[in-house]
Amino acid sequence: MSVDACQSGSGLAPADVTFATGELRRYLADLLAREQTAWKEHGAPWCDPPELLAGYLAGGKALRPRFCYWGHAIAGEDAGPLLPPAAAALELLHAFALIHDDLMDESDTRRGQPAMHRQIAVQHRRNGWAGDPDSYGRAVAMLTGDLAFAMASRLAAGLPGPALTAWQRMVDELVIGQSLDLAGAARRDRSIEVARTTTLLKSGRYTVTGPLSLGAALAGLPGLPPGLSRYGDLVGEAFQLSDDLLGVFGDPQRTGKPVGEDLASGKPTQLLAYAADMLSPRGQALLALAGTRHVTGADVGELTAELIRCGARDRVERQVHANVTAACALIDRAALPPRVAAALRSLALAATDRRQ
Amino acid sequence: MSVDACQSGSGLAPADVTFATGELRRYLADLLAREQTAWKEHGAPWCDPPELLAGYLAGGKALRPRFCYWGHAIAGEDAGPLLPPAAAALELLHAFALIHDDLMDESDTRRGQPAMHRQIAVQHRRNGWAGDPDSYGRAVAMLTGDLAFAMASRLAAGLPGPALTAWQRMVDELVIGQSLDLAGAARRDRSIEVARTTTLLKSGRYTVTGPLSLGAALAGLPGLPPGLSRYGDLVGEAFQLSDDLLGVFGDPQRTGKPVGEDLASGKPTQLLAYAADMLSPRGQALLALAGTRHVTGADVGELTAELIRCGARDRVERQVHANVTAACALIDRAALPPRVAAALRSLALAATDRRQ
Repeated sequence: MSVDACQSGSGLAPADVTFATGELRRYLADLLAREQTAWKEHGAPWCDPPELLAGYLAGGKALRPRFCYWGHAIAGEDAGPLLPPAAAALELLHAFALIHDDLMDESDTRRGQPAMHRQIAVQHRRNGWAGDPDSYGRAVAMLTGDLAFAMASRLAAGLPGPALTAWQRMVDELVIGQSLDLAGAARRDRSIEVARTTTLLKSGRYTVTGPLSLGAALAGLPGLPPGLSRYGDLVGEAFQLSDDLLGVFGDPQRTGKPVGEDLASGKPTQLLAYAADMLSPRGQALLALAGTRHVTGADVGELTAELIRCGARDRVERQVHANVTAACALIDRAALPPRVAAALRSLALAATDRRQ
Repeated sequence: MSVDACQSGSGLAPADVTFATGELRRYLADLLAREQTAWKEHGAPWCDPPELLAGYLAGGKALRPRFCYWGHAIAGEDAGPLLPPAAAALELLHAFALIHDDLMDESDTRRGQPAMHRQIAVQHRRNGWAGDPDSYGRAVAMLTGDLAFAMASRLAAGLPGPALTAWQRMVDELVIGQSLDLAGAARRDRSIEVARTTTLLKSGRYTVTGPLSLGAALAGLPGLPPGLSRYGDLVGEAFQLSDDLLGVFGDPQRTGKPVGEDLASGKPTQLLAYAADMLSPRGQALLALAGTRHVTGADVGELTAELIRCGARDRVERQVHANVTAACALIDRAALPPRVAAALRSLALAATDRRQ
């Protein structure tokens, strides 16, 4: 079946319209307000980290809570009282991951805005505070990420055993994926194995399969049906591949990230792993510069053109399409409640169309 | 009673000799080995963060596990099966706190060795890897801290409800204390209230009262007896005050940290809060330079001498002594099993004598 067929199955309205983003936002706002109260009760005259988190968590697509919600709905039950804390934990974990990721990558932009450490540095400068504004920005952002992780862990610790196990697996996979991302770039690794494992762990499992499993565990299911686990890995991989494509070729207005950062730093993406076999000698020489301090903006521009010319971009685009098609086919065979099947088909598309 | 009287109560041998540091180290080594196995099973060809953590956790005084052990022993019970994971969680949390603290403070030394981010930068340079060695060092150290926190949270989530609550309170207090430390330095705050709250949360509760409460909760006690809670806050505050003194006046060979870093960055310590009222006009002018980029090594040296001359150092030293004396008096009145009382008296001294 084609991706268009996926889409037609979802009807005209977004299929996961029953997922209440507004409710999640209110839950998070209330949680952060209570955190600020706790800080004040401890005698803190300033509460920057919980205030910063409250602002950060007011946005985003809530992709992971959505997958969690529909993982829970597989069992056909109504949303239980454990879904809001689980969904909030996923959003807090994601805030932690993004804030620390931007620090690790020294990336200055996120969601089209200055990254958190940049915002804090601006505040420091504006107030004429003591010390170096950039150091302060990095320190407070790191601690804000730590607070997000602490609050996520607190919520997760209150979930029943099987859900907690699913959570812990997801956290571990996120950390392993991030480690491979850093280690692979430093080691100039261009193997498809490392690129695939990094993509699978850092995005696939963490964005789709993990939240689905968490939702299923919350609904009391003994595990995710094998087809859905495969669906999750396929959609999650496609999600990361789309992100990789947009990071190199995309419109920064859409992605909220400047184009070329990944290429300049030589991240071990599948795009570059394919390219290592497909590029012209000139392209190979440019690729060898990626991740070194010798790479220039013109090199990145030329390498971008070479990646199109050699067919690596098309190959990744075909893989995104093939993954989504295969994932939708698995949904068709999975004997799910119709509204769950429709939602998961719709989410497979939403997750890989980063324009949303 | 005097501090000497504290000491005589502890007998000749270290009173907490029954606390098995070796067993804790083996537990941690085994945990990290299993973490590395999990990474390999996930397809990771490199396992830097768990390897780095294994090295990091092989050292240290295990102060927090000791307090946890003796908090548990208040109930008179033998060490139960929950103590090793709780003690390991405390050591992992402390590794997380130290690694991230050194990044936030841009501090290059820890325990007399290069800080973790410096060690990783050296490895990067030696291997001729791609990218900037210092950025890579910071990124991998940050992630290693994240892994330590994730593993600590995983162990804590397996503890019974009241112990988990004590744990979560301790984590929150650690984050709030660290936040006040950063925010106070930036805002050049010299109030004694902020200095006291920072000391209490960042060190007192986190190092002594929190681990004691955790141990007591593990032993099934409904809470820490009020005298012991006060003992914890007094000893914990004295622990931080000793650390502040050594950071300014001490021998870096003893502390494993260069002298003057805290002073140069203008940390909101009680020493500086007292000094704000006690310093000569010349000393005040030097203090106003602390935390700015205009401060020189000669300024720090002169300010150090002024802090002695004005009596601020003596005042903090007297407070350390008074806290330990009061803490030991509380132990005498607390009707504890004799070996617990002896251990807590001994630990009050050990925690405030940073030569150990």
